[in-house]
Amino acid sequence: MNSAIIAVGTELLFGQTVNTNASYLSMKLNQMGFNVMYHYVVGDNPDRLRDTLERAFALCELVILTGGLGPTQDDLTKELVSEYMGAELEIDERVMAELREFFDARGRVMTENNIKQAYLPKGCIPLYNRTGTAPGFVLTRDGKTAICFPGPPHEMKWLFENGARQYLESLSSKSMYYKVVRTIGIGESDLETALLPLIDEQTDPTIATYAKEGECTLRVASQRDTPEEAKEAVEEMLSKIDEIVGRYIYSYDDEELNEVVVKLLADKGLKVASCESATAGMFSSYLADVPGASSVLGGSLVTYSDESKTALAGVDKSVIEDKGVVSPEVALQMAEGARRVCESDIGISVTAYAGPDIPEGYAPGEGYVGYSYGEISGTIHLRGMRNDRFRNRNFYKMTMLRIVYELASKGEVTFR
Amino acid sequence: MNSAIIAVGTELLFGQTVNTNASYLSMKLNQMGFNVMYHYVVGDNPDRLRDTLERAFALCELVILTGGLGPTQDDLTKELVSEYMGAELEIDERVMAELREFFDARGRVMTENNIKQAYLPKGCIPLYNRTGTAPGFVLTRDGKTAICFPGPPHEMKWLFENGARQYLESLSSKSMYYKVVRTIGIGESDLETALLPLIDEQTDPTIATYAKEGECTLRVASQRDTPEEAKEAVEEMLSKIDEIVGRYIYSYDDEELNEVVVKLLADKGLKVASCESATAGMFSSYLADVPGASSVLGGSLVTYSDESKTALAGVDKSVIEDKGVVSPEVALQMAEGARRVCESDIGISVTAYAGPDIPEGYAPGEGYVGYSYGEISGTIHLRGMRNDRFRNRNFYKMTMLRIVYELASKGEVTFR
Repeated sequence: MNSAIIAVGTELLFGQTVNTNASYLSMKLNQMGFNVMYHYVVGDNPDRLRDTLERAFALCELVILTGGLGPTQDDLTKELVSEYMGAELEIDERVMAELREFFDARGRVMTENNIKQAYLPKGCIPLYNRTGTAPGFVLTRDGKTAICFPGPPHEMKWLFENGARQYLESLSSKSMYYKVVRTIGIGESDLETALLPLIDEQTDPTIATYAKEGECTLRVASQRDTPEEAKEAVEEMLSKIDEIVGRYIYSYDDEELNEVVVKLLADKGLKVASCESATAGMFSSYLADVPGASSVLGGSLVTYSDESKTALAGVDKSVIEDKGVVSPEVALQMAEGARRVCESDIGISVTAYAGPDIPEGYAPGEGYVGYSYGEISGTIHLRGMRNDRFRNRNFYKMTMLRIVYELASKGEVTFR
Repeated sequence: MNSAIIAVGTELLFGQTVNTNASYLSMKLNQMGFNVMYHYVVGDNPDRLRDTLERAFALCELVILTGGLGPTQDDLTKELVSEYMGAELEIDERVMAELREFFDARGRVMTENNIKQAYLPKGCIPLYNRTGTAPGFVLTRDGKTAICFPGPPHEMKWLFENGARQYLESLSSKSMYYKVVRTIGIGESDLETALLPLIDEQTDPTIATYAKEGECTLRVASQRDTPEEAKEAVEEMLSKIDEIVGRYIYSYDDEELNEVVVKLLADKGLKVASCESATAGMFSSYLADVPGASSVLGGSLVTYSDESKTALAGVDKSVIEDKGVVSPEVALQMAEGARRVCESDIGISVTAYAGPDIPEGYAPGEGYVGYSYGEISGTIHLRGMRNDRFRNRNFYKMTMLRIVYELASKGEVTFR
């Protein structure tokens, strides 16, 4: 079944709010086997919302709307959807009672405009809201279904899980199953080229590649008559993909590299410490994005200047002078220093010229990652992404994570 | 002028990627005086993209597209926009040369599909991409303008700032002049309330407030017959604003707080060092986003664990035991430790419970920032944003920057 998502709210068109509702709902709808054909964002404007509703229903049987259900004058979604579907609004006594209770409990007077929220279209399935004051609803007519949610993401999610999901499951005819695989160390076009025979010969499962910052993801999806068939088709395809590009895959479940690394280190009981020059803490703060990273992050030394490399990580001043601060020798001493000073199992470092100013004799973005773990130590020569500071630093960070991932999972670094 | 934004990419309809490009562009377009009427998201599907293009241009003279410019088969935006505008595609020699250079520099073979990126519509204004391989472009016909950007947000932003912005500024018939003022330490509704007399009495310049993560921005815009008149009107308004909320303003030129702080420290010849627990390097890496930060960043100690606070920053073990690791005493010793160990003028620290797990006796997100500069030292008690790890850590980082900004600019911390 084809579906569209309409987000209503001028704040989205001003760029003040990011439309995370659309991505949440898209993921859920896809997982349930609905095709999401379009996202629309419109302001709090009756003509444009009316127009968008007509447009969406011309193409899709299911239209999901978020926002515009609140008590203020510019909240118009319920009124316009009801009008479009030919349903009158009437007071819902349960919502009315809950509203009174809500305001009583807070000792606040319920202003007149709040009563607006107690009206629902006749014949709808109400989605009673335990997380806010505005209810959502499902309204069906002539094979068209509209589902309206309030705009605040946590209210929308709660009503999706507690009401809308059950309704949607009853609508779906086919079963969709998909997996998102994450790779690192291979570019999007190389990945596509490597998988072209698989991509070309298949209509289901479908394979799609997506470039993300510093890595590539791969989505394998199947729509079949039963969930089991869809799952089997995806798994069969995954094993073919694994044979071709398995060495670049770090997650078969759409996990971020930092989550994978934190979990891996925690499982093995290992601590990592970093000594960061160009990334200046990006590696350690990225690891700490994951709750529970404290058990695996031994510490980090941000040594942006030459002096701090010596003072904090114990890098020989003479080595910096002889070999240059961006050299394999310095990278290695930084990794060893971090490991020693932070009393950790793995030391990882980076020293590089991220740009925009690159000293003579170095390529833009050139640098070294150093690593030290047990008896293993070494350096990786980095060749940056042009003279783009942002991308270079992100690339260094991802390379550091990739090395830690390899050291912890395989006990060696397999790439050069 | 009315505008619409079309994001192209099946990954958006699958919910794998959030459409942050639309909010970024919306904010910029609004700041420049364009009305953003619609956002659309369509998949990598020629018919639907064609249809959406027609739809958008029926309502708007300016349509901005993001995504679908890459090397793979499903990248269709350039082809369809050119077809719609009646322009042929031809090889752009500069892009071709840059592509070859890009692959040569990495010692990689350029696969055939990459050549696709060197084609641009005849008669377009190319937006040469220094941050990736796919160029963008501006294409105009019969009073309609399409601007195409690659999908990766940092590439889109770079091309917006380095090419598209100048073009858009030239589109406006009246002379628009605007300034974006950045504030920190005041909420959006307080800011609006403070400026209400100015907002109410004015039709031009217009004043608009926008809430961002951890700060608020203010746009003051005027449209007059000449650039001089517009500029004068904006500057007059800015001086009135300055009288009311000047103490919260850190930039009159839409600069990021990290840029402002790096510039300020460099001007004063000061070095800052951080000791970071909950932020784990976010402060130092955010400073190092700014080229030239090496001269002002003395170093940083990431001390996520109790032991590392003692080992790296010399925090008394007994103080951690007596007062708790999240305490003003520990925050202060961390700041002093960072300043001492990294031989810097200013020491700044954070120790906090970012969530999701908060020990009993602490509020979600509760913590302390410590600072030390010359004879001045102290702590700020942090009260977090609910139990939201992401927002809390960002709030800590911004608070640290705000304190460094005040110390370096005023020699004191004026807020509590």
